Amino acid sequence: MGAVYSALSHLDCSRCATRHDASVPQNLCGCGGPLLARYDLDAVRATVTREEIARRAPSLWRYHELLPVSSADAVVALGESITPLLPLRSLGRELGLPRLLVKDEAPLPTGSFKARGAAVGVARAAELGITAIGMPTNGNAGAAWSAYAARAGLRSLVVMPTAAPEITRAECALAGAELYLVDGLISDAGRIARDAVRRRGWFEAATLREPYRVEGKKTMALEIVEQLGWRLPDVIVYPTGGGVGLIGIAKALEELAELGWVDGPMPRLVAVQAAGCAPIVRAFSSGAAQAQPWPDGEAHTVAFGLTVPSTIGDRLVLDAVRRSGGTALAVGDDAIAAEQGRCLRREGVLLCPEGAAALVAVRELRAAGWLDAAEQVVVLNTGSGLKYQHTLLPVDAPVLTPDAVLE
Amino acid sequence: MGAVYSALSHLDCSRCATRHDASVPQNLCGCGGPLLARYDLDAVRATVTREEIARRAPSLWRYHELLPVSSADAVVALGESITPLLPLRSLGRELGLPRLLVKDEAPLPTGSFKARGAAVGVARAAELGITAIGMPTNGNAGAAWSAYAARAGLRSLVVMPTAAPEITRAECALAGAELYLVDGLISDAGRIARDAVRRRGWFEAATLREPYRVEGKKTMALEIVEQLGWRLPDVIVYPTGGGVGLIGIAKALEELAELGWVDGPMPRLVAVQAAGCAPIVRAFSSGAAQAQPWPDGEAHTVAFGLTVPSTIGDRLVLDAVRRSGGTALAVGDDAIAAEQGRCLRREGVLLCPEGAAALVAVRELRAAGWLDAAEQVVVLNTGSGLKYQHTLLPVDAPVLTPDAVLE
Repeated sequence: MGAVYSALSHLDCSRCATRHDASVPQNLCGCGGPLLARYDLDAVRATVTREEIARRAPSLWRYHELLPVSSADAVVALGESITPLLPLRSLGRELGLPRLLVKDEAPLPTGSFKARGAAVGVARAAELGITAIGMPTNGNAGAAWSAYAARAGLRSLVVMPTAAPEITRAECALAGAELYLVDGLISDAGRIARDAVRRRGWFEAATLREPYRVEGKKTMALEIVEQLGWRLPDVIVYPTGGGVGLIGIAKALEELAELGWVDGPMPRLVAVQAAGCAPIVRAFSSGAAQAQPWPDGEAHTVAFGLTVPSTIGDRLVLDAVRRSGGTALAVGDDAIAAEQGRCLRREGVLLCPEGAAALVAVRELRAAGWLDAAEQVVVLNTGSGLKYQHTLLPVDAPVLTPDAVLE
Repeated sequence: MGAVYSALSHLDCSRCATRHDASVPQNLCGCGGPLLARYDLDAVRATVTREEIARRAPSLWRYHELLPVSSADAVVALGESITPLLPLRSLGRELGLPRLLVKDEAPLPTGSFKARGAAVGVARAAELGITAIGMPTNGNAGAAWSAYAARAGLRSLVVMPTAAPEITRAECALAGAELYLVDGLISDAGRIARDAVRRRGWFEAATLREPYRVEGKKTMALEIVEQLGWRLPDVIVYPTGGGVGLIGIAKALEELAELGWVDGPMPRLVAVQAAGCAPIVRAFSSGAAQAQPWPDGEAHTVAFGLTVPSTIGDRLVLDAVRRSGGTALAVGDDAIAAEQGRCLRREGVLLCPEGAAALVAVRELRAAGWLDAAEQVVVLNTGSGLKYQHTLLPVDAPVLTPDAVLE
């Protein structure tokens, strides 16, 4: 058999199932549905084994057969290493969940899991001949795509709410992105960016409006499963804004099952949102197949990445959660802040507010009996708490003179 | 042969060569010299091969035979993964150094290379029965030691200059450290912390005043050499504050040579400081064996980690640089800021100011002909630029209304 670097075969519309050509740039299907990448899994199975993957360099590119980038030469890398899967022993004891784990995405380039989508999305865009991209962001995605675009030599346009974490402005601007702030939400930024790229003939790289960001995000699940010795955890808890990560996780788990690389029941997927912006949770609770937009004027949470009043991925997220036997729940800002402090003090791990929201959800689901003591639960910490400086400061500490003496 | 987890045998004074017991807590030698850990390298050679190391999990603990922690159970881990060694192709072309690489330490826990020293230092302290530690810091070391102390259940006391990066205050305080700010420099913080731990009977964990931080830092060189296929680069460029990293790098290279795991000429080591605080550079230039303290009132640089007016490691740093055929130079703050922006724009890599200082030094050494076009040069980026938000902000970007239209 020939060695296959990528087993990408085509794209399928996630709504109407129309097949699309993966060898040219694509955005949405004509029906408005997001496209999903499909692979020749027989070719993957014939090309590589789990043992061979284990011997490759510790980066998300070790799963290249299941990624869309066609050759090693086309990879765009900033050091997207395998992220740690850490036991939370002290909190696990407190919660009665001795097998509690956090998948800590903080070490990725630009400090968040957005680097996964950007690495794969930018590399694929570049190899398809795209030279300029545009997108809205709540901060971290813009930072990641700007950095990878700089690495690949692509032009980029980013539109971000004024309320997004301030450091991400610098990351975009210093990386050479054309940066605009909008006095509104990511939905407003999305409209402005979409309109601009159309006028300019640039490529729209917004969440699920191009098919490859989700492919990068799915490597979260590939890593978790490999780190557990190619075994499935019982539950994966994911802080859900646009929801691409959850869609990617579900997609990866399906591909692994079809490959025969895992067996047993699929993990239950939990979508966590903030009480101040919870369109997915509301739709889940009401049994709806899609989510109604959260009223713009009411959307607010300290977990800024969750301030997504509507997402084009709503049906995919709801479907993935329900098919897995999972659930969706919203948590409050006060609980998020308290959990952030508790996790650092007890475990030495600084979560971002979104990751802290997921851990709050675990606390509540355990108290409600939805999680069992024997279950292995993986919480996604989607980025570095260091980027949310304003949520951590100021700190009240005594100021000493240089000649001070402490008891 | 028996399997050796750690081949630690004893401690040697780096000044008077007196041998010390490594099985009990130790600070400085009676002569005032820092102690260095020594290993039974024959036992290492008999226990493990480079090929076996390559099959271990991608974390600094893969080098455990050459680290002081006595068993896998005593390891304290927050996900200290192998950090990326990235080509800087665009800048390398510009500078005429096509083999230019950056070792990017940003992905480490707490966002800096200080995690290496803290991981090993805290784990060793805990297994020696120490329950409370104290130290001065310019920010990142305090953040790292606080987090690892929290993970290990140790109490910690941290004294930091008011001018240290503000985020590091939150990292220490939220991790449960007893935090004090001092209206002075790290030398003042050092005196206050030293005095406090003596009064309390706590353990002093300041730079080189305990012997194991340098052991953690030496893994930078172990990783670089392994990532290069167990080959030595020509030059390693290191931003030098307290200098522990450079001492650790030199020590690791010597151990590797003695093991027979590398051969050929040792890399030339370059110590980079800021023009506003350059005691090591001044001593190097004058041929002195030790450095005179930089006048406190004059010590100032945007690369805050380099604001170290005097270090107990001065002789070790100067000796390592000279024996390697290396050099020492100071660079200006304006050049540092410009290099930070240039590297992100051209390479997609956000350096911290200290890492940018090292890259400025490469630019100057190449221009001066000290570096040759054929040489492989590794620049240490010692931490995440995200922690130095104040050096990157504010950003001047247009603010749009939600109904705005972009051309």
